[in-house]
Amino acid sequence: MKVAVLGYGTVGFGVVEMLKKAEGLEPGPVLVRPGKDDEPFKVTSMEAITEDPSVDVVAEVMGGVEPAFSYACAALKAGKHFVTSNKALVAAKGPELAKLAEENHVAFLFSAACGGGVPFLHNLSLAVQSDEILSVGGILNGTTNYMLDQMQSTGMSYADALSDAQKLGYAEADPTADVTGLDALRKIMLACAVAFEVLPVEGLLHEGIDSFSAADSSYIQSKGFACRLIASGGKAENGSVYAYVEPVLFDSSAAERSVLKNFNMAKYNGKNAGRIVMIGQGAGRWPTASAVLRDCSDICSGRRIMMKPSCKAGSADNSACVHRYLVRVPADVALPLPIKEKEAVGESCYLITDAVSVQAMHEAAKALRENGASVFFAAIGE
Amino acid sequence: MKVAVLGYGTVGFGVVEMLKKAEGLEPGPVLVRPGKDDEPFKVTSMEAITEDPSVDVVAEVMGGVEPAFSYACAALKAGKHFVTSNKALVAAKGPELAKLAEENHVAFLFSAACGGGVPFLHNLSLAVQSDEILSVGGILNGTTNYMLDQMQSTGMSYADALSDAQKLGYAEADPTADVTGLDALRKIMLACAVAFEVLPVEGLLHEGIDSFSAADSSYIQSKGFACRLIASGGKAENGSVYAYVEPVLFDSSAAERSVLKNFNMAKYNGKNAGRIVMIGQGAGRWPTASAVLRDCSDICSGRRIMMKPSCKAGSADNSACVHRYLVRVPADVALPLPIKEKEAVGESCYLITDAVSVQAMHEAAKALRENGASVFFAAIGE
Repeated sequence: MKVAVLGYGTVGFGVVEMLKKAEGLEPGPVLVRPGKDDEPFKVTSMEAITEDPSVDVVAEVMGGVEPAFSYACAALKAGKHFVTSNKALVAAKGPELAKLAEENHVAFLFSAACGGGVPFLHNLSLAVQSDEILSVGGILNGTTNYMLDQMQSTGMSYADALSDAQKLGYAEADPTADVTGLDALRKIMLACAVAFEVLPVEGLLHEGIDSFSAADSSYIQSKGFACRLIASGGKAENGSVYAYVEPVLFDSSAAERSVLKNFNMAKYNGKNAGRIVMIGQGAGRWPTASAVLRDCSDICSGRRIMMKPSCKAGSADNSACVHRYLVRVPADVALPLPIKEKEAVGESCYLITDAVSVQAMHEAAKALRENGASVFFAAIGE
Repeated sequence: MKVAVLGYGTVGFGVVEMLKKAEGLEPGPVLVRPGKDDEPFKVTSMEAITEDPSVDVVAEVMGGVEPAFSYACAALKAGKHFVTSNKALVAAKGPELAKLAEENHVAFLFSAACGGGVPFLHNLSLAVQSDEILSVGGILNGTTNYMLDQMQSTGMSYADALSDAQKLGYAEADPTADVTGLDALRKIMLACAVAFEVLPVEGLLHEGIDSFSAADSSYIQSKGFACRLIASGGKAENGSVYAYVEPVLFDSSAAERSVLKNFNMAKYNGKNAGRIVMIGQGAGRWPTASAVLRDCSDICSGRRIMMKPSCKAGSADNSACVHRYLVRVPADVALPLPIKEKEAVGESCYLITDAVSVQAMHEAAKALRENGASVFFAAIGE
């Protein structure tokens, strides 16, 4: 099968190089910006790809919703299989693309959009066919995991950890989506869409690591904890889907603590399979390219569906998910949640709440911040 | 697709129940022993399955090489896809079955034979198509992991841990294959066959946990280590395949230490994907049945090949794999290997070797044991 590639940046280059060596696959034309077509295999118009009858698969690795969405529609309508690493695209337009793929009898796969090199969505979509998935989640953002690991293993400040992550190419020039948890949220949206046939687009909650300080790091370590940024999704007992991102504290027995540097850990819990955990590199040229290539090989083998065409956009309900939380607030600020323990440290106060809902915790933090208070919170992992 | 099941024990029952609910799959006839056919869906002759045109897939979960091998051949020759959880069968007859499946244009998949519920071989066989696999391995035997975890977390003796594992149904009445490492060895043979197109059947080395005592457990813990039974396979620089099983000691930073109870941890290292780790339940009715079902769903999607028809039986060469080892010998016995450290504990002596080959270590232990000495050894994990 011949695979056309949209984008020739870090990942695109990796995809083309891997296609040259892969069984049953070969690289086709590569779409680049006008003026960048300095080699014969590069083209500057999408038509050159959709109208090329030798192209079987279009692999998009440009990022962003547009023009990626228009290109995806054009590829699917032209009867080309479509593979993407673009989580923003799938989070915004996944169900539409899944329907379009079905109508045109072609594949729509997006393993590389969640977990980088970790074959998480691939396995999840296969497990769904014969098992009931109860929950999904894990460490889905490598940039913040790298920063948290640096801060906790060396005592580095948040600003230094961010600057380090940028120097290493893990964090974008604008790291907002990573550090606020939005990137991890998009990934858990995709996992929910695959696992539960609902792409949650409302009622979502995300807390990142941008309130986590070196002082917080040293406090939680003194209590035997380590902090990771965790995305969680699942089916609540009332049938609704929950989906949220927040920092979580783990004690020394937790496998999450062994996930270091920019690694990801993705999990699902199947009614029959039990808990399945996958760890690997969450980003980078070759891990991401390898996920794109696995999807292409999977199309060779006959696979067509990752998100079912019946998948619909819907609301998340995080009111039934409860955790105890560690919360840092200024010493003179009261947290309007049931408190079990309290410890003053300098001008801050660390509180441990009773079990409260994710909804209640995120709303309380938001209200305090609107009043100008600096707040850090993290769920206490069970 | 209709799936006939060979065997109606723990796993067979699980497979039939899961088939009733799976998308695109339904249970067909179930082969049982004569006299056990007390329900209409049970049959006692393989012909009733091979001659039933409504059967698309045969799933074998009986175990043992015969009659499973004859049944597998009959199923493949009759044009039925063949799925198995039987590692002894695939380790003994895999390449023959892979060729027979190709000749008859049907699938031969065996995910459930390695890692239980962990979708290891499935992902490995997909990764092989576009990535170069450098190494495979991990904790592939749940029974011994459960025993090691019990001994190290509670100080339990080997005999008590074994008896516990038997009570819980993890260990067979005859636990030899588990505790000597033979079961894990068969699994790494399969992983090598999938990853490297060589099923190593000679030159293999396996050391189990049957020499590990409560005193060893307490000694290694005092040094900050924990012991796991690790299967290792890979491609050496000279192109030969290595494959061996032995206890390995891990310090507190290792992810292996968080693999508790009867869980498995399977890993591969891809040139592009990097290190991919998968953790899940290695055995039990539902995890194993879920792996069988995933293979069936995968056949629905078009997949046919796990072990390539070009895979050949071959020799392993473990002479180029080197580790430092911790070795316990009787105080009056000399170990004919280069020693770096030495500590006497009662009538035993714990030694730490220089880096020596796996081959040399296993042979030295064998020679000492032939002279009646009690020896425990474990590689020191890097």
